[in-house]
Amino acid sequence: MQPPSAQEIAATVSASMHRDDRCAALLGIEPVAVAPGSAVMRMTVRKDMANGHAICHGGLIFTLADTAFAHACNSYNVVSVAAGCSIEFLLPAQIGDTLTASAEQRVVRGRSGVFDITVSNQHGETVALFRGKSHRLNEPVVAAAGEAVPDD
Amino acid sequence: MQPPSAQEIAATVSASMHRDDRCAALLGIEPVAVAPGSAVMRMTVRKDMANGHAICHGGLIFTLADTAFAHACNSYNVVSVAAGCSIEFLLPAQIGDTLTASAEQRVVRGRSGVFDITVSNQHGETVALFRGKSHRLNEPVVAAAGEAVPDD
Amino acid sequence: MQPPSAQEIAATVSASMHRDDRCAALLGIEPVAVAPGSAVMRMTVRKDMANGHAICHGGLIFTLADTAFAHACNSYNVVSVAAGCSIEFLLPAQIGDTLTASAEQRVVRGRSGVFDITVSNQHGETVALFRGKSHRLNEPVVAAAGEAVPDD
Amino acid sequence: MQPPSAQEIAATVSASMHRDDRCAALLGIEPVAVAPGSAVMRMTVRKDMANGHAICHGGLIFTLADTAFAHACNSYNVVSVAAGCSIEFLLPAQIGDTLTASAEQRVVRGRSGVFDITVSNQHGETVALFRGKSHRLNEPVVAAAGEAVPDD
Repeated sequence: MQPPSAQEIAATVSASMHRDDRCAALLGIEPVAVAPGSAVMRMTVRKDMANGHAICHGGLIFTLADTAFAHACNSYNVVSVAAGCSIEFLLPAQIGDTLTASAEQRVVRGRSGVFDITVSNQHGETVALFRGKSHRLNEPVVAAAGEAVPDD
Repeated sequence: MQPPSAQEIAATVSASMHRDDRCAALLGIEPVAVAPGSAVMRMTVRKDMANGHAICHGGLIFTLADTAFAHACNSYNVVSVAAGCSIEFLLPAQIGDTLTASAEQRVVRGRSGVFDITVSNQHGETVALFRGKSHRLNEPVVAAAGEAVPDD
Repeated sequence: MQPPSAQEIAATVSASMHRDDRCAALLGIEPVAVAPGSAVMRMTVRKDMANGHAICHGGLIFTLADTAFAHACNSYNVVSVAAGCSIEFLLPAQIGDTLTASAEQRVVRGRSGVFDITVSNQHGETVALFRGKSHRLNEPVVAAAGEAVPDD
Repeated sequence: MQPPSAQEIAATVSASMHRDDRCAALLGIEPVAVAPGSAVMRMTVRKDMANGHAICHGGLIFTLADTAFAHACNSYNVVSVAAGCSIEFLLPAQIGDTLTASAEQRVVRGRSGVFDITVSNQHGETVALFRGKSHRLNEPVVAAAGEAVPDD
């Protein structure tokens, strides 16, 4: 039997993480695509996601981006946690908007990685830019799924 | 009739923002205290706030901190939005933990401000450090509440 | 007479900025390329750029990246200043290394912009990732050089 | 013979780092004070520190802050390097200004730490706010100087 490909590993890990992600369920975050080092997630802004200014709470835009980041940095099946993140808010998101977060690996070196996540709305406008620093632990996300090696 | 004090303005604005904050209601975020340039908010980590690693989703820790930030930077009754934020995650938050976010103004100059938010758990341990950059718009949060001037 | 092209404007502004940049001269920072929204700068790490750990001071890696950022965000001939920056250090730079900083525009919207700068060494390894937020003022860098409009 | 105090260790390490810091010499950065977890450094803005806008290059303000950060996070005599930093620029620094960077430990947990550095001018105005994430290696800065334990 062939070992799983890096793409198969990424898909297995992402499906497992999403199944267990209660917060994603709460917010209606849906996976769109995953690959080694990258992930795309989508969320539609509901009324109960608005802040006191009647636009989407920035924290939920962050949460969408952070979810895409998590799927991208765990895609090699080595548990990776966020050490720190920064986000620049460029455009408000309105109730009813569909937001897409695309996470791409910039660098993975040793136990540290940097990933860039772009959040866009349904018009293709950039709503926010997120940068996450990941830190790898020495354990698999899914025990039996194999491990892939990041390109750098 | 006396004009409202800076403390009264902060309390009025915070109450109004909280009443309209659907996201805070969704996550059970509760105001603890507010004053000119500062705010304290609290949230208990529920099961449906866990991510795929069974700990509190970092995005929701961010959202709690961001909410305290919003109340602090709007406390002078001039609408202020987050231009950018960074967060360092220091300790995971477990299901059942009660998290407290304390926002303090560092600097407000012209239309820009910097606020530091510390997120602690019920043991007094620092879970995350958040820094937010605010940008003021030329409008009140609550039309009739008066406006206060930040110290710097 | 034709108005100058966006590329001609970028080249004129960059040459003017570099001529007046005493700090770039101090550190031996040299321009490699400039275009609308992007710039490449180079610096060789000298002995007097080492910190107390005998590697290049992180502040000077930042300064190189910040210089590329400045040329990229001013390339439309509208004075733009850094509002805030973050840098992730991935690999130490040794004395004798030649570092190249490449700045690329991510987004310019209204008066704000976000630029990503990658600093690499002579082996093509990523030494640092820098993200800069720019803020535009209402004045030209070079009075007679015309103004270009950023794509977004 | 008594072991050295935490204050004596911090002073020994700082003196050693400063003596070897060629970059600090280049920029005229001078130590003002050091203690366990904190440090204060000073720099006067010279003409050759100006950028193309005739104000102090932001990279050199960063370098001053980063130097104070390095002395603070190495003050326990365990080599600590900057993993990442962010800086918010609030006020330009003019040629002739004397800038003071004060570094304070926020949290040290395991191998990671967060330090906040405030850069002020001679009028007491905040010029920049810097936040640094440190990462500890398993070696002393000064071999014979002993090691101190951070409070948290």
